Amino acid sequence: MFYHKKPLQYYKRPEKPDAVYAKKIQELIGGTFGEMTVMMQYLFQGWNCRGPAKYRDMLLDVGTEEIGHIEMLATMIAHLLDKAPVSMQEDGFKDAVVGAVMGGNSPRDAIASSMNPQHAIVSGLGALPSDSVGYPWNGRYIVASGNLLADFRSNLHAESQGRLQAVRMYEMSDDAGVKDTLSFMIARDTMHQNLWLAAIEDLESSGMETTPVPSSFPQELEKSQFAYQFWNHSEGSESSQGRWAKGKSMDGKGEFEYVANPQPLGPEIVPPQPEPKLHGTSMK
Amino acid sequence: MFYHKKPLQYYKRPEKPDAVYAKKIQELIGGTFGEMTVMMQYLFQGWNCRGPAKYRDMLLDVGTEEIGHIEMLATMIAHLLDKAPVSMQEDGFKDAVVGAVMGGNSPRDAIASSMNPQHAIVSGLGALPSDSVGYPWNGRYIVASGNLLADFRSNLHAESQGRLQAVRMYEMSDDAGVKDTLSFMIARDTMHQNLWLAAIEDLESSGMETTPVPSSFPQELEKSQFAYQFWNHSEGSESSQGRWAKGKSMDGKGEFEYVANPQPLGPEIVPPQPEPKLHGTSMK
Amino acid sequence: MFYHKKPLQYYKRPEKPDAVYAKKIQELIGGTFGEMTVMMQYLFQGWNCRGPAKYRDMLLDVGTEEIGHIEMLATMIAHLLDKAPVSMQEDGFKDAVVGAVMGGNSPRDAIASSMNPQHAIVSGLGALPSDSVGYPWNGRYIVASGNLLADFRSNLHAESQGRLQAVRMYEMSDDAGVKDTLSFMIARDTMHQNLWLAAIEDLESSGMETTPVPSSFPQELEKSQFAYQFWNHSEGSESSQGRWAKGKSMDGKGEFEYVANPQPLGPEIVPPQPEPKLHGTSMK
Amino acid sequence: MFYHKKPLQYYKRPEKPDAVYAKKIQELIGGTFGEMTVMMQYLFQGWNCRGPAKYRDMLLDVGTEEIGHIEMLATMIAHLLDKAPVSMQEDGFKDAVVGAVMGGNSPRDAIASSMNPQHAIVSGLGALPSDSVGYPWNGRYIVASGNLLADFRSNLHAESQGRLQAVRMYEMSDDAGVKDTLSFMIARDTMHQNLWLAAIEDLESSGMETTPVPSSFPQELEKSQFAYQFWNHSEGSESSQGRWAKGKSMDGKGEFEYVANPQPLGPEIVPPQPEPKLHGTSMK
Amino acid sequence: MFYHKKPLQYYKRPEKPDAVYAKKIQELIGGTFGEMTVMMQYLFQGWNCRGPAKYRDMLLDVGTEEIGHIEMLATMIAHLLDKAPVSMQEDGFKDAVVGAVMGGNSPRDAIASSMNPQHAIVSGLGALPSDSVGYPWNGRYIVASGNLLADFRSNLHAESQGRLQAVRMYEMSDDAGVKDTLSFMIARDTMHQNLWLAAIEDLESSGMETTPVPSSFPQELEKSQFAYQFWNHSEGSESSQGRWAKGKSMDGKGEFEYVANPQPLGPEIVPPQPEPKLHGTSMK
Amino acid sequence: MFYHKKPLQYYKRPEKPDAVYAKKIQELIGGTFGEMTVMMQYLFQGWNCRGPAKYRDMLLDVGTEEIGHIEMLATMIAHLLDKAPVSMQEDGFKDAVVGAVMGGNSPRDAIASSMNPQHAIVSGLGALPSDSVGYPWNGRYIVASGNLLADFRSNLHAESQGRLQAVRMYEMSDDAGVKDTLSFMIARDTMHQNLWLAAIEDLESSGMETTPVPSSFPQELEKSQFAYQFWNHSEGSESSQGRWAKGKSMDGKGEFEYVANPQPLGPEIVPPQPEPKLHGTSMK
Repeated sequence: MFYHKKPLQYYKRPEKPDAVYAKKIQELIGGTFGEMTVMMQYLFQGWNCRGPAKYRDMLLDVGTEEIGHIEMLATMIAHLLDKAPVSMQEDGFKDAVVGAVMGGNSPRDAIASSMNPQHAIVSGLGALPSDSVGYPWNGRYIVASGNLLADFRSNLHAESQGRLQAVRMYEMSDDAGVKDTLSFMIARDTMHQNLWLAAIEDLESSGMETTPVPSSFPQELEKSQFAYQFWNHSEGSESSQGRWAKGKSMDGKGEFEYVANPQPLGPEIVPPQPEPKLHGTSMK
Repeated sequence: MFYHKKPLQYYKRPEKPDAVYAKKIQELIGGTFGEMTVMMQYLFQGWNCRGPAKYRDMLLDVGTEEIGHIEMLATMIAHLLDKAPVSMQEDGFKDAVVGAVMGGNSPRDAIASSMNPQHAIVSGLGALPSDSVGYPWNGRYIVASGNLLADFRSNLHAESQGRLQAVRMYEMSDDAGVKDTLSFMIARDTMHQNLWLAAIEDLESSGMETTPVPSSFPQELEKSQFAYQFWNHSEGSESSQGRWAKGKSMDGKGEFEYVANPQPLGPEIVPPQPEPKLHGTSMK
Repeated sequence: MFYHKKPLQYYKRPEKPDAVYAKKIQELIGGTFGEMTVMMQYLFQGWNCRGPAKYRDMLLDVGTEEIGHIEMLATMIAHLLDKAPVSMQEDGFKDAVVGAVMGGNSPRDAIASSMNPQHAIVSGLGALPSDSVGYPWNGRYIVASGNLLADFRSNLHAESQGRLQAVRMYEMSDDAGVKDTLSFMIARDTMHQNLWLAAIEDLESSGMETTPVPSSFPQELEKSQFAYQFWNHSEGSESSQGRWAKGKSMDGKGEFEYVANPQPLGPEIVPPQPEPKLHGTSMK
Repeated sequence: MFYHKKPLQYYKRPEKPDAVYAKKIQELIGGTFGEMTVMMQYLFQGWNCRGPAKYRDMLLDVGTEEIGHIEMLATMIAHLLDKAPVSMQEDGFKDAVVGAVMGGNSPRDAIASSMNPQHAIVSGLGALPSDSVGYPWNGRYIVASGNLLADFRSNLHAESQGRLQAVRMYEMSDDAGVKDTLSFMIARDTMHQNLWLAAIEDLESSGMETTPVPSSFPQELEKSQFAYQFWNHSEGSESSQGRWAKGKSMDGKGEFEYVANPQPLGPEIVPPQPEPKLHGTSMK
Repeated sequence: MFYHKKPLQYYKRPEKPDAVYAKKIQELIGGTFGEMTVMMQYLFQGWNCRGPAKYRDMLLDVGTEEIGHIEMLATMIAHLLDKAPVSMQEDGFKDAVVGAVMGGNSPRDAIASSMNPQHAIVSGLGALPSDSVGYPWNGRYIVASGNLLADFRSNLHAESQGRLQAVRMYEMSDDAGVKDTLSFMIARDTMHQNLWLAAIEDLESSGMETTPVPSSFPQELEKSQFAYQFWNHSEGSESSQGRWAKGKSMDGKGEFEYVANPQPLGPEIVPPQPEPKLHGTSMK
Repeated sequence: MFYHKKPLQYYKRPEKPDAVYAKKIQELIGGTFGEMTVMMQYLFQGWNCRGPAKYRDMLLDVGTEEIGHIEMLATMIAHLLDKAPVSMQEDGFKDAVVGAVMGGNSPRDAIASSMNPQHAIVSGLGALPSDSVGYPWNGRYIVASGNLLADFRSNLHAESQGRLQAVRMYEMSDDAGVKDTLSFMIARDTMHQNLWLAAIEDLESSGMETTPVPSSFPQELEKSQFAYQFWNHSEGSESSQGRWAKGKSMDGKGEFEYVANPQPLGPEIVPPQPEPKLHGTSMK
């Protein structure tokens, strides 16, 4: 069960409105790696967790924190959209020169043209559960598999892409308020990258899970002769120069091998015959 | 530019048809972590790569291999769907007892009822670019950010969830042909988990990227006092027992701290006034 | 900022597993009118609210409660999926008679065939952010317009469809545990229908908003001669028999009129000429 | 069965082209609350209606009218897109100053940059079945539940959000033709809000349906002690000041109660054990 | 503007209910090539048509007919869902043997398990705007490009896939009522395939459009040396045996040529340098 | 199994960056008729093909070529995005006049405002698997039905819409590099339109398939009296003037007939009674 406190976890108000920046920063709310993703991913992983209590509790703690991050960004977007130029004819901004052909183009009009139209039409200058091109967040963005090593790696990936995007938004702003709030969120992303790296170490050092995921599957059941080969599917061999092409494998269970000129091991395809009632084209 | 050879990379034909299993194994083609995802993710990362040539070449090699994995699974699905019971009235399977109310229920009817209907109606017993519930693959499943550490972590996550799902499909089958083909694909997933771990080590040991991603962002710009704190957003403290709650942080740049009773640092929200032309409800 | 308490708001454990029912009840989590919808809709409305504080606070209170409803249903689904028949060959259930053609059909197999495959392959017997056919929840399901009368009507609609669906799930179960938990959730839906009716009355009686939404738009700007007419677009006149066809209009500002044989008021379409550079077909 | 007459229900041609406004007004065709939604929602409700003939006939009448509203807006968009600046190099608009770095920025170029690209590339200056950010209309936008009170409330909500959006588009234009056509559509929305309020009264006064929806479900089966409580999930009690917090409930069947400090009534979660074949992480 | 007549264009009632068949035949309403697609595609093409009036009128005539096809199928689905086994415990169907583990499996239960759950929970035994796996129809299924030859080919393709699917549904039924209604719809599909072939001939014989679409683009602007070559991207040369590999090209403007061993004509990729503010990985 | 060669099939580098054009040309990668569509459609058709080997081989050849077309466009987009103005404050472009209200509007800012934000935030100036409005490619865009005549018509339609869009992009550019690369792709589209026309002739002349698709369905099973009628669903008779309204039908099996005033042939709808457990509204 959940509770709310009215103050925000952290917040500095933007110095000035910027409707175009508001459009862009929607990526951090409703994008693939936005706050809706990490919130939902951690909560569902917590609810689905059947491992030790410390992992479940930790997942739900972080997931609960992330709800508040959506709240911070939604507030920021409302402030960024304040006084947005929702109509073109206002304030004498109309450029008389441009005339009948194209309908005007003052600076204010340009903003009205390139802001997210749904910020005016749908949400009345509030945040949307969408990304920076207006595409809605959806449930396929998250994963909660029940295997904690797989899931912690998913979380590490989400926080890596997420911090990268937050940093890019930081670089794209010159508003001290926006930058201050983002510098808090970026710090939390730093923690969360460290958190998932620590959780992976915690899980692996306990002997519960290891590489390859899922480690409870007996590796003798896989075709182990192909389990440590790099196949070079192209001409040239630049790809032979990396750590993945030679030496001990990362899981310590094999030796990397570089297959320079790989050939098919399987047969040509012999398709089954078509079912007459489905009226596909047959061999004749 | 790409080329095709007709034989499959590897393949054993299923011993017998199984239309319901065909529905399920679509997850490995068109699901969030299916072969379409890894193929497209690695190819786009290769095309977007602006780092050293060995990374670009390696990404395109692996992406090219994955096209062939779709081919293997598409072939398997065609064989699994062979002789699928597409119509209910055939072969005298109709259970006369069941009668007028509900339309029959023989074993063959039960399969006809629970297979993916689009395998009959849309694809004529061929594979679909969809997952196990018929939802189509889409481009939001992949990421190619230009930051290789972020992307390699994404690849590691995809191969971890992917191998977990392939193993689950292996466990859910008792068909020696299916299991043989899957045991090849699981072995390749083992390689690919090792590959991305190796690529991460390669990248980090070269000093190009490190934690936190993106490491080129100066950490003095983030609010560093919050960069290593775990906030306990719940009653109870099971979450204090993990590696993430105390000790040196994983990036070696801080010390984990457990905040047992976190309080908001921000203000209550003061919303901006509504824009009259948008007819939202105001304070009055 | 948000907090979590570990006990559930309310819960009775299902008496027995039922993987098919688990598939269906996903509708109440991730369907159009599931708990993810009401949670997100009320939170975004609260964050976007620029009206009196009591409305904002109320919206965030109810939104926060709904997070806990997802938690209850996710827990129920995990219990319903316990011991689900994830593989067909186990436990001697294989029906030897059925043989090579179709791969078996015992009762247990039938369940394995008709459960949501992603409950096994993707989530490892945990809840998914999807509906009863596996389609993911998405952000277009919610609205937060900034106009509170419009939004309260949206909330009333969501709770009406939502309670209807919860009742249908109640009728479709004979598990005392499931029914007990649902009877709590149905009671909360009763409250929430009453809540939004009360909020509408509260808002209208304060004079802030009224019919037609948005009431701040001057009605003299609309073509008022058409504002109270019912147009009968079919042969026959059954549609003349309702309250909407005659008498005082519901907003008290007009008189309903039944137009039995409506005719177009506009011109035939004169399309503009095609742009040559876009190579559309012209009049010639 | 359906018929078409060539003249439009109503129409005034826009005074001048405006490609950016054309992008925005797509919201009224293919947005969540656009004409495609109300058309499809009313038609499916009519086809699914099993109640009295007057409701079915009325639903199909209004649904049929709405097809013509798409037609009006599609025509308006074609006129707004007339002479749109689809290419940047035409007509000497190129700003020579801007030069090699960024590719030009005249007023006409700015419009070419911020119009919906698919209006040029895909539809050749015609309307699209999409909203103002180019996201396609989809079937999850509509509901036809078979319960008429639930559905009429859904229709009231759609017409409320829909009229709000039409009014916002009216405010965002200064084109007399556009405003004239919209003032007709806004008047029809006024009628339709009144229509659904009247249909609700009609249905309730007949005793067929009432609050809470569905009223045919015996309320003694719900946990009635929680059916009229408002739970305050936050610190502070602004939410106690509304009509929903005290007094007779709106359905006349209970008394509102304000629970200032709500506590969980359920147990802590005890997750089931993982299924070994699915390789989730267990308690150890 | 549109009108409705209450009788259906054509209809025979199904002899008996069949909830599983109802699930499948949703493909013909809301699938990629269902009636919602052809209705919307023809109407939007009509509204976007800037060519001769006979084409516009014809497009709108056929589009209007298709609305009535949705109506027929929606009616059929309601009849097929009549008396569907929406709950498992009814009618003594519970198989006592199956017991606690899995929750029952009678014939009636099997139907309850494999019908579309939303037919019970969401639509109350009515049709849905979705396909046979429950995926909603969406606007990206249609095209209206303004180029009539491109669009007529799109229509021919839609009617070809559509008739194929209708025929498959016909084969999958043994219900005389269903088959009778489908035999009407299949006949209309025959007409519509002929219609689009005739419209293509009409358009080409008038000299308005021809191959390659768009024919108004001067072919000297394309790299004509590659305009009639077949590139063999594989080992082996089965693909040389078709009409496409030699002889006069279909547009009469070139000669087919078979390139047995095609080589890249372009350079290796030289990626641009990363933008420092976006923190991608650089060459070092 | 697939292989890669590093050089591109064909390529000329754009003369200068143009971030807005990069947004638009995404349509050719991830749009409904982009290269991802034709690649996936031809590969899946090849894998699902059960007809003669020459068709399978040809389909896989063309599908393999199309992978390389994505590669060309992805490279072009990277070059177009080079030096894109990702942040507003750089290079002294800030227009001091515009001031506090709206955040600046220099030419460079205008580009920053109207480029695809995800090109900066998500992909770090690389290509995305999305269309020109940022909507992701998805698997519902393709079809592989097993009936080759249906599928070749689908391919012809895809190449017709595809070439039309490529030509429109050509017209919208004045960059010699872009135009050169596009002129190669347009030539390949010319070939592919000819290819599918040739494949249709090849298939029809062999007697394997003909109109109406699927020709293996006995036409005496359809209601043949309606198989060649054009129904005029509107007032006026412009639609009688086309080839489709009179004369021999295109399949040579019937005579076109124009039904000027079509009437319904079916009954009025008699809906089934509602199921009480689903709580729909009944007749009373």
